Amino acid sequence: MSRPLVAVLNGPNLNLLGRREPALYGHETLADVEELCRRTADRHGCDVDLRQTNHEGVLVDWVQELRESAAGFVVNAGAYTHTSIALRDALVTVPGPVVEVHLTNVHAREDFRHRSYLADVVAAVVAGLGPAGYAAAVEYVATRATRSAVAPA
Amino acid sequence: MSRPLVAVLNGPNLNLLGRREPALYGHETLADVEELCRRTADRHGCDVDLRQTNHEGVLVDWVQELRESAAGFVVNAGAYTHTSIALRDALVTVPGPVVEVHLTNVHAREDFRHRSYLADVVAAVVAGLGPAGYAAAVEYVATRATRSAVAPA
Amino acid sequence: MSRPLVAVLNGPNLNLLGRREPALYGHETLADVEELCRRTADRHGCDVDLRQTNHEGVLVDWVQELRESAAGFVVNAGAYTHTSIALRDALVTVPGPVVEVHLTNVHAREDFRHRSYLADVVAAVVAGLGPAGYAAAVEYVATRATRSAVAPA
Amino acid sequence: MSRPLVAVLNGPNLNLLGRREPALYGHETLADVEELCRRTADRHGCDVDLRQTNHEGVLVDWVQELRESAAGFVVNAGAYTHTSIALRDALVTVPGPVVEVHLTNVHAREDFRHRSYLADVVAAVVAGLGPAGYAAAVEYVATRATRSAVAPA
Amino acid sequence: MSRPLVAVLNGPNLNLLGRREPALYGHETLADVEELCRRTADRHGCDVDLRQTNHEGVLVDWVQELRESAAGFVVNAGAYTHTSIALRDALVTVPGPVVEVHLTNVHAREDFRHRSYLADVVAAVVAGLGPAGYAAAVEYVATRATRSAVAPA
Amino acid sequence: MSRPLVAVLNGPNLNLLGRREPALYGHETLADVEELCRRTADRHGCDVDLRQTNHEGVLVDWVQELRESAAGFVVNAGAYTHTSIALRDALVTVPGPVVEVHLTNVHAREDFRHRSYLADVVAAVVAGLGPAGYAAAVEYVATRATRSAVAPA
Amino acid sequence: MSRPLVAVLNGPNLNLLGRREPALYGHETLADVEELCRRTADRHGCDVDLRQTNHEGVLVDWVQELRESAAGFVVNAGAYTHTSIALRDALVTVPGPVVEVHLTNVHAREDFRHRSYLADVVAAVVAGLGPAGYAAAVEYVATRATRSAVAPA
Amino acid sequence: MSRPLVAVLNGPNLNLLGRREPALYGHETLADVEELCRRTADRHGCDVDLRQTNHEGVLVDWVQELRESAAGFVVNAGAYTHTSIALRDALVTVPGPVVEVHLTNVHAREDFRHRSYLADVVAAVVAGLGPAGYAAAVEYVATRATRSAVAPA
Amino acid sequence: MSRPLVAVLNGPNLNLLGRREPALYGHETLADVEELCRRTADRHGCDVDLRQTNHEGVLVDWVQELRESAAGFVVNAGAYTHTSIALRDALVTVPGPVVEVHLTNVHAREDFRHRSYLADVVAAVVAGLGPAGYAAAVEYVATRATRSAVAPA
Amino acid sequence: MSRPLVAVLNGPNLNLLGRREPALYGHETLADVEELCRRTADRHGCDVDLRQTNHEGVLVDWVQELRESAAGFVVNAGAYTHTSIALRDALVTVPGPVVEVHLTNVHAREDFRHRSYLADVVAAVVAGLGPAGYAAAVEYVATRATRSAVAPA
Amino acid sequence: MSRPLVAVLNGPNLNLLGRREPALYGHETLADVEELCRRTADRHGCDVDLRQTNHEGVLVDWVQELRESAAGFVVNAGAYTHTSIALRDALVTVPGPVVEVHLTNVHAREDFRHRSYLADVVAAVVAGLGPAGYAAAVEYVATRATRSAVAPA
Amino acid sequence: MSRPLVAVLNGPNLNLLGRREPALYGHETLADVEELCRRTADRHGCDVDLRQTNHEGVLVDWVQELRESAAGFVVNAGAYTHTSIALRDALVTVPGPVVEVHLTNVHAREDFRHRSYLADVVAAVVAGLGPAGYAAAVEYVATRATRSAVAPA
Repeated sequence: MSRPLVAVLNGPNLNLLGRREPALYGHETLADVEELCRRTADRHGCDVDLRQTNHEGVLVDWVQELRESAAGFVVNAGAYTHTSIALRDALVTVPGPVVEVHLTNVHAREDFRHRSYLADVVAAVVAGLGPAGYAAAVEYVATRATRSAVAPA
Repeated sequence: MSRPLVAVLNGPNLNLLGRREPALYGHETLADVEELCRRTADRHGCDVDLRQTNHEGVLVDWVQELRESAAGFVVNAGAYTHTSIALRDALVTVPGPVVEVHLTNVHAREDFRHRSYLADVVAAVVAGLGPAGYAAAVEYVATRATRSAVAPA
Repeated sequence: MSRPLVAVLNGPNLNLLGRREPALYGHETLADVEELCRRTADRHGCDVDLRQTNHEGVLVDWVQELRESAAGFVVNAGAYTHTSIALRDALVTVPGPVVEVHLTNVHAREDFRHRSYLADVVAAVVAGLGPAGYAAAVEYVATRATRSAVAPA
Repeated sequence: MSRPLVAVLNGPNLNLLGRREPALYGHETLADVEELCRRTADRHGCDVDLRQTNHEGVLVDWVQELRESAAGFVVNAGAYTHTSIALRDALVTVPGPVVEVHLTNVHAREDFRHRSYLADVVAAVVAGLGPAGYAAAVEYVATRATRSAVAPA
Repeated sequence: MSRPLVAVLNGPNLNLLGRREPALYGHETLADVEELCRRTADRHGCDVDLRQTNHEGVLVDWVQELRESAAGFVVNAGAYTHTSIALRDALVTVPGPVVEVHLTNVHAREDFRHRSYLADVVAAVVAGLGPAGYAAAVEYVATRATRSAVAPA
Repeated sequence: MSRPLVAVLNGPNLNLLGRREPALYGHETLADVEELCRRTADRHGCDVDLRQTNHEGVLVDWVQELRESAAGFVVNAGAYTHTSIALRDALVTVPGPVVEVHLTNVHAREDFRHRSYLADVVAAVVAGLGPAGYAAAVEYVATRATRSAVAPA
Repeated sequence: MSRPLVAVLNGPNLNLLGRREPALYGHETLADVEELCRRTADRHGCDVDLRQTNHEGVLVDWVQELRESAAGFVVNAGAYTHTSIALRDALVTVPGPVVEVHLTNVHAREDFRHRSYLADVVAAVVAGLGPAGYAAAVEYVATRATRSAVAPA
Repeated sequence: MSRPLVAVLNGPNLNLLGRREPALYGHETLADVEELCRRTADRHGCDVDLRQTNHEGVLVDWVQELRESAAGFVVNAGAYTHTSIALRDALVTVPGPVVEVHLTNVHAREDFRHRSYLADVVAAVVAGLGPAGYAAAVEYVATRATRSAVAPA
Repeated sequence: MSRPLVAVLNGPNLNLLGRREPALYGHETLADVEELCRRTADRHGCDVDLRQTNHEGVLVDWVQELRESAAGFVVNAGAYTHTSIALRDALVTVPGPVVEVHLTNVHAREDFRHRSYLADVVAAVVAGLGPAGYAAAVEYVATRATRSAVAPA
Repeated sequence: MSRPLVAVLNGPNLNLLGRREPALYGHETLADVEELCRRTADRHGCDVDLRQTNHEGVLVDWVQELRESAAGFVVNAGAYTHTSIALRDALVTVPGPVVEVHLTNVHAREDFRHRSYLADVVAAVVAGLGPAGYAAAVEYVATRATRSAVAPA
Repeated sequence: MSRPLVAVLNGPNLNLLGRREPALYGHETLADVEELCRRTADRHGCDVDLRQTNHEGVLVDWVQELRESAAGFVVNAGAYTHTSIALRDALVTVPGPVVEVHLTNVHAREDFRHRSYLADVVAAVVAGLGPAGYAAAVEYVATRATRSAVAPA
Repeated sequence: MSRPLVAVLNGPNLNLLGRREPALYGHETLADVEELCRRTADRHGCDVDLRQTNHEGVLVDWVQELRESAAGFVVNAGAYTHTSIALRDALVTVPGPVVEVHLTNVHAREDFRHRSYLADVVAAVVAGLGPAGYAAAVEYVATRATRSAVAPA
């Protein structure tokens, strides 16, 4: 019998993590983030499916594909956070919890990064904790996934 | 000899129609909408080509592909209505009439749904009539298509 | 036993239809619109009461007069669409469905025509279809009127 | 010799009081409000002239008709509060005190109800007290009316 | 054979002229203004039809009634200048020249008097010249009326 | 057995009442206001606890201290009306009715006094009636307090 | 003994009058305007000093030079109307009446022409009457100049 | 030798945690939060000093008192997040890392909660994770505190 | 007989002067500023009462305490300059001159420091001169204090 | 040994060049532009890689693919200029110079084309020169590419 | 027979080129720019008239002086780009092409440099290419000048 | 050997000082201000060069002329403070300190006087101290001039 799945979706340019502007984004790569997410989820008996794409439409496709099978989502939509109503509309259809994550503190950056089309339809927003933000988000989702799974017991 | 074609393009998340938020979007599926469009067009001697995609770029591709062969367009761009200047720029190049359709009354929803990048370059906007809005739009396009076809007679 | 009534209320300057700026508003008169509404309603076993006034207060009076006897409203409030909270407040008290109609595509005109005080308290908005917009709106209201009338059977 | 008169003017849809949205506006009718105003004014030796209209122009007519004979005004202009500069201009010419009254707490409703064209040219604004707000306003006006009447003594 | 007619329409509260806030509006009455307009028009062989109403709808009615018989309009819409799109829409249908007049310098008054719904659809705007502004406007309309009447000669 | 309590909280500079800008605020002192509140409450079988402070935090402390023991609140938060979200958050936790009172007509003063952080979370707002506004507010609260107290009878 | 002087100051590009965009500005030159002003002033026993410059600073210099000797000013500051606070500050020091004139109806042109730094410190604004606007303004100033001159008699 | 200290400062109304609006804020109390912070910090060899106040000034006092002795700060300033520049200025002087925490997802609440005066001067912002947000923040601070402590080794 | 008193009030974080961000605020402490104020006042025969607090309410308390006994105020309200209407309201009641002082040039810092709730109710504003700004302000107040004291002579 | 490469990326609808709205965009095709770029680059000993796509994500993919191998970028992102933060984020990671090009003068078109998400992270912006703008941009990039290549010499 | 003339006008502070902020504006002087313009124009058989002034009015004077004799204009109006409607109005009267040039990328600088009063009335805008931007602009103007000169042949 | 020079530049209408609106600007003339500046500078061993012009361009010329020879600038640009980016750009090139001075408290005047194009590029801003503001500014500049002159000693 399969374990609950935490979908961890990443948007544009996050594949450059560790190479792009390390002073801003740090030296860890997306593979490091994936490993951290996996370890965190595993502590709660959950699996992780981490993906990255530069395409807004693909993010929407993935949310639709996973929205019922995943126990919840961790989403770092990168720039699409600030411009994609399509992704927002997709996430609204997700029955499980969704957490928005940003590696950097977007609130301290350009004005256009202060508006998020996702923030008011997700459960929580974590920004600036670096990779640890993914861990906190995965933990939040996994806790709820296993709690509700256990609930009937 | 082929009949005039009404292109009916649908944007992100409309493939979930009937499953996503039925209280808001109703229980009919996109296949039901397609059937309704086809019947309406057929009454006017027209064919329908209904498509759906979650990708902004694909919508632009389709408009370019069909802009000269189609007699007109019915476009429910979903969330891209509010964010896509690329789609607007593509629709401006269409010689036939274009009608913007929304299943729900977008004017009664979030503020960011009140701005449409398409509304001022299309012939008409229909919002809130549900699938009947597609029928009204197809009828509008088909009437013009057949009228102009007959005009020389 | 009387048939369901669709109230079709028209605001300022719509009495000039067919004479005022035909390039913008077309050559059909309000009598033509009334005839079209009547034929459409009749197909659904409904009657039509079409009225026009240049007075905001008269529109409010009429909504109050008809709000319980009419099965629904089709409202083209013209300029009052953009300035009348009084009409909005009256329409909110109407139990049946209300559809806002505009002959032209107001979304492609002056900025002040983009704000409607009615749009978020009506069921649907149709703009730019010309007289056909009235027909679509009457059909929407009549469909609901007869459907609910039959419901108990 | 006649007693000081408190004019109590009511704007659009207030004739529906008690029938329109009772959850919002309560079950008392405008006749109940009139009776309350009359009792309050009478305690101060004043008469009341309570009127209601859906027409902005009639409100202006009435202010002009009564502005010199009335000792003061209590005005619930309803929706015209937010859209009528004509009424504002009329009230500015009134020598006696004017109090703006709203049955509901307009400050807690839609944004467009937060702007009043009357509020900065009246003596006081009372919103949300229900019919008791009329009583407080009438009392304010009547107190000043009788105080100044007695002054010469 | 009748002489060209200059319609001079006046909006709310202008019937109080000479009595309302003389420090702001002066001591001349609307009858004085009418006499001045008549003398000015007469010098150009024109008649004047000066009217006043507190009702927005009546202003629209009058524009519709006179729009083809009058050689042009002088309009002091008072407060409706700033709130009436209905009047704007009516004036747009007038074939002759229209001049907007204000007794006071509205540009030096409250912010909401700085927006005019009429100003960009009229030929000219005169504000602050007092009754002389009416004379200048009547002269402008009468000059054009008689010039075009003579043109065929 | 104790009587229902109406808490009357006053914010910064209201201790100067009667001495500060009497042309604006009148000659009555806060003690006079207290006496008026007490008499009004007493007519309804209620007690009054009137307090004043210049400290935002103390207002929050007091709301927390009294929020369950008081039957309702009358709050004149003075300048904190326009700047204190902390007070708003405290008042939201109050089970009884809250009325916002201002001695002057704040709607006719500086723009920054037109925004109230309290207005949309209270039952009513009274501004410009002077001390009589306190009386009307106390009456509103006391009426509800005693009505519900009597209800079971 | 010298006659009262009406200063008529013209700003940038008005020297091109009659050559620049005649569809917008007409075929009359600044010399024609000067002649019209002179004839108008002469009817009232006044002289005219008409000047033109493209320099904001020169306009300020001229106002300072003439502010006490001139009976009043007619100012068409052209583009500086919308950008010059320096000219505004100079005009505020003028004891006589000042009228702002524009050949075209600036209210119907670009948004940035809707803001005038002069309009709220002058007596009147005339826009769109063409050269006749200068005449009306000169008449306004001359009337006041000669009236006050005669007053002591 | 003392262990690194994590200061956990809480603003207005957080003392009501568990009692105020549990649907929004949950059933856990501030004591529960403190216990969670302590356990988390202890895992990293750190101590916690958790405090709460309703006074903006006291928050500033505490930051000044602890800014050099604490290894870092976790701050849930509640309503002062959105109104206190004083607290911002105090936090800027803190040499260690600061994390802003909110129990609820403030981005999904009222507009005025979307502006934070702290967000662009702190290292990270966590909103909506409930008490787990405190834990994540304490972990972030403690990790850095112990890492730098060990660094010289 | 006591000498005129210049009250010098300082707001939040100014107690850190000399220690906080010396690159921005310089190396001088508040004690240095006090000494400079005292020397300056003494040259004009005045005394100084310099105080500092992090509490908005305390600033209001102090203004009330000293408003009649002090000859004038020098106020560096720090962050409260930009957020405190309560302090503004207190300062308005001060009969003597008030000067607003800032050590740094606030006009060159964050946008939110460009709005001062005090600036339009004080006599003057000095920003960026460092401690010398206090001296200039004290001199301004002391000059007026001693001048008026001498006046009757 | 390969020559420096100038990447010339084109966004949505630019494949229609020469066919779409020739009055606005001219009669030259994208192949013509490519030829012009190639000739220009060749003069400086550089190669050109010109691509076009309607997909935002593909533009991001291409920037990532070429960002280190290309000597610089010329980017005409079309509509994505105004809506794509994802592209901006990708371009920020490019070590070489980037020039933004538009065939038409976007500053003279719709308001939404005045905001560019790229303009403040590129070296230069050229708009309205038609295909010559590409040439100027390629020259700018090629000059720098070959200059730095020679630099070590 | 004279050659076509390209007018190259420069606004305030451009005479400091090479000395002012070289990190921003480069080390080349205006004489270097002039030489580059001359060489470029000469390749197309055109002459150049390059001028510089710190005076807005002089720029207007020069445009009027040259508007008919010059084949086109290259304008770097410096700061007046953002504040001069007078210059805009002058340039509108120029029959030949006008190109706006900036040495730096103004789109990446202060907000107030993002608004250009010239940009929507010129043919093209070039910003950030340094002196090469002048060359591209001269080439654009010269190409058109010689093309049209040859056209009749 | 020459003494350090403090340049004191004055903008439009300041030559009217003492004659223009004395209630606002006081009775002292610019010659009085010059004398005060001279005395103040002399105390620090500095000379003063005070100039006044109504021309924006002349202010720019003067800054360029003196920017290297003067030890610093005191600038009261009058109205150009709020409209001149040209002057801002000139002042940015000045190596010595610049202080912005206003005789009146501009922060308490019209909204458009609240924006200064100079304030964020100068060292300090003094407004409302009257002529004493010039003295404080000269002192600030002179202190730095002589301090740095002495520094090497």
